Amino acid sequence: MIIIMERNATEENIKKVVNLLKEHGFNVIDHAGDIHTVIDAIGDKTTITPDRLSALEGVKEVKSIREPFRLASRDRKPEDTVIEFSNGVKIGGNNPAVGIVGPCSIDSNYEGLLEVAIAAKEAGCEFLRGGAFKPRTSPYDFQGLEEEALKLMARAKEETGLLLVTEVMDSQDLPMICDYVDVVQIGARNMQNFKLLKAVGKCNTPVVLKRGPANTIREFLLAAEHIMYNGNENVILCERGIRTFDNTYTRNTLDLTAVPVIKKYSHLPVIVDPSHATGQRYLIEPMSKAALVVGADGLMIEVHNDPENALSDGKQSLSIPMFKDIIGRISALNKRLHYERECLSANIQ
Amino acid sequence: MIIIMERNATEENIKKVVNLLKEHGFNVIDHAGDIHTVIDAIGDKTTITPDRLSALEGVKEVKSIREPFRLASRDRKPEDTVIEFSNGVKIGGNNPAVGIVGPCSIDSNYEGLLEVAIAAKEAGCEFLRGGAFKPRTSPYDFQGLEEEALKLMARAKEETGLLLVTEVMDSQDLPMICDYVDVVQIGARNMQNFKLLKAVGKCNTPVVLKRGPANTIREFLLAAEHIMYNGNENVILCERGIRTFDNTYTRNTLDLTAVPVIKKYSHLPVIVDPSHATGQRYLIEPMSKAALVVGADGLMIEVHNDPENALSDGKQSLSIPMFKDIIGRISALNKRLHYERECLSANIQ
Amino acid sequence: MIIIMERNATEENIKKVVNLLKEHGFNVIDHAGDIHTVIDAIGDKTTITPDRLSALEGVKEVKSIREPFRLASRDRKPEDTVIEFSNGVKIGGNNPAVGIVGPCSIDSNYEGLLEVAIAAKEAGCEFLRGGAFKPRTSPYDFQGLEEEALKLMARAKEETGLLLVTEVMDSQDLPMICDYVDVVQIGARNMQNFKLLKAVGKCNTPVVLKRGPANTIREFLLAAEHIMYNGNENVILCERGIRTFDNTYTRNTLDLTAVPVIKKYSHLPVIVDPSHATGQRYLIEPMSKAALVVGADGLMIEVHNDPENALSDGKQSLSIPMFKDIIGRISALNKRLHYERECLSANIQ
Amino acid sequence: MIIIMERNATEENIKKVVNLLKEHGFNVIDHAGDIHTVIDAIGDKTTITPDRLSALEGVKEVKSIREPFRLASRDRKPEDTVIEFSNGVKIGGNNPAVGIVGPCSIDSNYEGLLEVAIAAKEAGCEFLRGGAFKPRTSPYDFQGLEEEALKLMARAKEETGLLLVTEVMDSQDLPMICDYVDVVQIGARNMQNFKLLKAVGKCNTPVVLKRGPANTIREFLLAAEHIMYNGNENVILCERGIRTFDNTYTRNTLDLTAVPVIKKYSHLPVIVDPSHATGQRYLIEPMSKAALVVGADGLMIEVHNDPENALSDGKQSLSIPMFKDIIGRISALNKRLHYERECLSANIQ
Repeated sequence: MIIIMERNATEENIKKVVNLLKEHGFNVIDHAGDIHTVIDAIGDKTTITPDRLSALEGVKEVKSIREPFRLASRDRKPEDTVIEFSNGVKIGGNNPAVGIVGPCSIDSNYEGLLEVAIAAKEAGCEFLRGGAFKPRTSPYDFQGLEEEALKLMARAKEETGLLLVTEVMDSQDLPMICDYVDVVQIGARNMQNFKLLKAVGKCNTPVVLKRGPANTIREFLLAAEHIMYNGNENVILCERGIRTFDNTYTRNTLDLTAVPVIKKYSHLPVIVDPSHATGQRYLIEPMSKAALVVGADGLMIEVHNDPENALSDGKQSLSIPMFKDIIGRISALNKRLHYERECLSANIQ
Repeated sequence: MIIIMERNATEENIKKVVNLLKEHGFNVIDHAGDIHTVIDAIGDKTTITPDRLSALEGVKEVKSIREPFRLASRDRKPEDTVIEFSNGVKIGGNNPAVGIVGPCSIDSNYEGLLEVAIAAKEAGCEFLRGGAFKPRTSPYDFQGLEEEALKLMARAKEETGLLLVTEVMDSQDLPMICDYVDVVQIGARNMQNFKLLKAVGKCNTPVVLKRGPANTIREFLLAAEHIMYNGNENVILCERGIRTFDNTYTRNTLDLTAVPVIKKYSHLPVIVDPSHATGQRYLIEPMSKAALVVGADGLMIEVHNDPENALSDGKQSLSIPMFKDIIGRISALNKRLHYERECLSANIQ
Repeated sequence: MIIIMERNATEENIKKVVNLLKEHGFNVIDHAGDIHTVIDAIGDKTTITPDRLSALEGVKEVKSIREPFRLASRDRKPEDTVIEFSNGVKIGGNNPAVGIVGPCSIDSNYEGLLEVAIAAKEAGCEFLRGGAFKPRTSPYDFQGLEEEALKLMARAKEETGLLLVTEVMDSQDLPMICDYVDVVQIGARNMQNFKLLKAVGKCNTPVVLKRGPANTIREFLLAAEHIMYNGNENVILCERGIRTFDNTYTRNTLDLTAVPVIKKYSHLPVIVDPSHATGQRYLIEPMSKAALVVGADGLMIEVHNDPENALSDGKQSLSIPMFKDIIGRISALNKRLHYERECLSANIQ
Repeated sequence: MIIIMERNATEENIKKVVNLLKEHGFNVIDHAGDIHTVIDAIGDKTTITPDRLSALEGVKEVKSIREPFRLASRDRKPEDTVIEFSNGVKIGGNNPAVGIVGPCSIDSNYEGLLEVAIAAKEAGCEFLRGGAFKPRTSPYDFQGLEEEALKLMARAKEETGLLLVTEVMDSQDLPMICDYVDVVQIGARNMQNFKLLKAVGKCNTPVVLKRGPANTIREFLLAAEHIMYNGNENVILCERGIRTFDNTYTRNTLDLTAVPVIKKYSHLPVIVDPSHATGQRYLIEPMSKAALVVGADGLMIEVHNDPENALSDGKQSLSIPMFKDIIGRISALNKRLHYERECLSANIQ
């Protein structure tokens, strides 16, 4: 850590900081500049936080040198994390990107859900996603069918063999949800619901963690750290658009750069959700392809058998014919990129 | 609602929208412009959402005319909501702003906590706040003493008569927390934790709802709506700074304008937390005064008996001497503004 | 336009709005809802602005139905604008994306500049870009060589045949700059420097207009409208990253979705600058490829013969070897995408 | 400066940085941490920028210790800058806040302008502001009467003795404008129009510099630095609202905290424009009072004799009766705060 003192910091103030750092076992170097004294604390200690130091009198700023996330960091684990499922499906590393497809929320029409599942299966996708518990901005909106929805998803899994993904909103529901699904999702609005992160960290089911719409990449990786710290290392990060000053033509701003950035700093797989990010059907094909090109390990795409009657997010849901139309081109790109990665790693360019 | 159709919307598309609206009992008027057809749906129906309509083919945009929050709206309840406590303390309306004072998180030093409580009491403040369950960005930070902290707060209440405020992070802890405190707080990061909003809505304890750092005022009022919709109308809104592009010198950007804006649209009391908003001690006095001037019904100020050894947010906590220094000037302003409001409402300016 | 009246708007207020609209030749329909009266003004008049109407007493909100930009809109010109240069190079439409390559700012080392130009030429790029007049946040930074830089660029053009692009910061310099370059650039910070937009609109040289880091896509298209309105229709829009809450690992947030969005609403060509958007060398290859995939008509990439001694933005400049390494893969993708578009437009998929 | 090296930085990389710093006369200390080597460069040199250093291979990050603005900094000039005008009016220091009042843009109705000027004068305000050259987002909006407007303002000055403020948009107009007005204004959108900052820096007229809607406080002070660096030290900073994710109920988010923050780091006077910040008449009184409470040296308030027919920003303009209604209360607060400051500085609390 580097501690920058205020211009008017006293000898007292400086001594206090230095001594505290030494007590905690840091190797300390301090030197006065023209205006500010700078104190370098060398060592990797977690017994004292920058927060604590910045509270000391005369301290202007504390700067951490190393990233605050450790388990999620490539510094600790250079190779990519690959998550493998019972049926052999893999997410991460050099594997082709997976397809996670389904309606925003599950309604009671099973035939419709099955239609979507079959279309996904035929397109070579691996996962069926659907909302059972819905976080809704307004209490007047549909809140989800809860366990009934999970039962319908389970039936669709039996018929198609697709793996299941659904969102958990409360730690109390977690055991029940884990009985049905292969991956639990933490929604964007719950990215810093630390009780929920802890609960999910204590179960063995892989987790899709969605980036909070106003959270930095560092906070995103720290949220993953909460899950890993509690024992669950199977975390899949999902970029789903961030909140910016511009939502004139799209719901959020898709931060595709986050994919290569996260891959530089972390070993965890990263997927992209163009449906929630853009909120517009016509943008799903181009942004899905771009996500693959920048290295996404998967795509989460909303598809509904009857978007015009969907109980939520119909505007951004693809109909089955639209989905069939674009998924072919997306898969072709996915295959080619996978092939190129294979060649690259085999050093035959 | 107003539905704006795409320039290339077909007669079919338009008819479909019109018929759906009529089915739902709206009085419908549609007319073609040079480029877009506009459909007005007159009536107040909740059976169909803008979300649903915007999913129809050919729909460019759906614009709601009335605000989506109803229980929280002044349209429904023109007079200010005033929350009264057993000891006669009142929040809202023309009452003087209340003072909610205490450490960010409670540590095991009871004497220190008591010192703060006594200072608050002597300064005429009404509430002692303190964190028992702490949401922390990093799992390596102090997570709170949980029930032990509440026991210490209860002791301080006995000795000082101050009312208690603490944050709830999980619905499971709610009954236990309500046994100890007079007001439960929903933290900024949980503003859209709808399960928690629902749980808090089902209990009778007044709630301080903090604005999410990246939530609009409309979303803020919709979060309050979730609580009220579930039965608890004693909601106190707390502006605590929003996330913007600039955090060079402050932790967040305090949106003081939100206070008069909320008071125009809602009858709920609004308080301000300058400590979390700015993260800087030297800004607490000016921003507290400004909050009072724009009509805040209360101030939430972090005070710690030993900020340099606080387990969280020491940087923004006032020491007891600093607090005593500024609270006198803040209280004087509070009294004068209250007097002016009294005169105003008595029409003797 | 749609005018939404306040709940407490008087008959007087409403009549006033209606009459004013009628005076301006609108076909007016008004109807009272439960709470708000809504007035529809049908017609396409520019004699009265929403701004003006929203100032009328009792008006809550004015909503435009049609986009405020007209010349830049696809409503007026459905087919893509293609800009052709003397040497046959074309930007826009189904043409392959162009490459605009060069140092952030031109320093006095001509040999270095030439090296870059030759590398660009050999890679099949069409344009050499370089800064002669530099907008710098700090007055203590290098401000550019001005005309001397243009002379060096002109020499490099003679030797390589590359077209030239440089930024104009003041209308006074415009005639001189146009004598040297093929395209003038309006920098991001000047996107709403309307005097400059007007001046550029009055000359015939094609313009690269960079998106302001905090400007919406609508404002971006309105800035283009200023140029077109003054007579210059050869506007190339450049997405170069927007300012968001997160600049931890990148300089800005590249808004790639803006490319397909702009192409839906406007006929103008759109290029992408991954160098300024990310500020990181390692992100230039993936984000360039993603830009091509979403339909960018060109890429603007910073390359310097000696980034470590560049007078500005060295961190984001590629060295010539790095450039040669990545440009091959980027060009291959460009060619394949162009081929696919050709097939598509020839209806042979 | 502090230079943090990448974890994989070589001895070579480190040596290169160290040597370069030494060449530039820095006193250099470097030490390896567990992961990153940190290099401290002690000394105050402007011959090498962080920009330049961050381009060196193996450099992860460069952190400046001292603020990049020097002339604008309190480190250089601890006492407040006070700007005095021919008629004895003063801005800054312990002087009462000044009132800068007038229409957004000047239209041809002189009588109306005079009415506003007289109302301002009677209310004890010191400045008449009005737009002659208007930056407009759309080319279809009114662009200003240019010199004719200045002539009208000059007449109003003769009759009332008010000082004049108007915006300059192009350096070419500057000499002409300076013949008419006492203060030139740089608009928010031109805050980083460095050619204009330079031109204004070379004239003697005091400058109101408006904060760019998406610029940090540091960038704001650096823009002031550009003006001062070119010779004009009479810079008045104006906070006028920043762009955030929330513009539902207000035009911008007024960053009032910026006032005490700027006063901590700079000696320059700071004024506040609640009209542009909020865009809502009902917010002007509360936000004006709050601005005074946090220490603003002036208020810029839009007043129009006939807002409903104003050619721009009517929505946020006060009518003369509204202005007269609120200005009394604002002035009373201004007087009391000035009195308190006087007492304070006279140490008689």
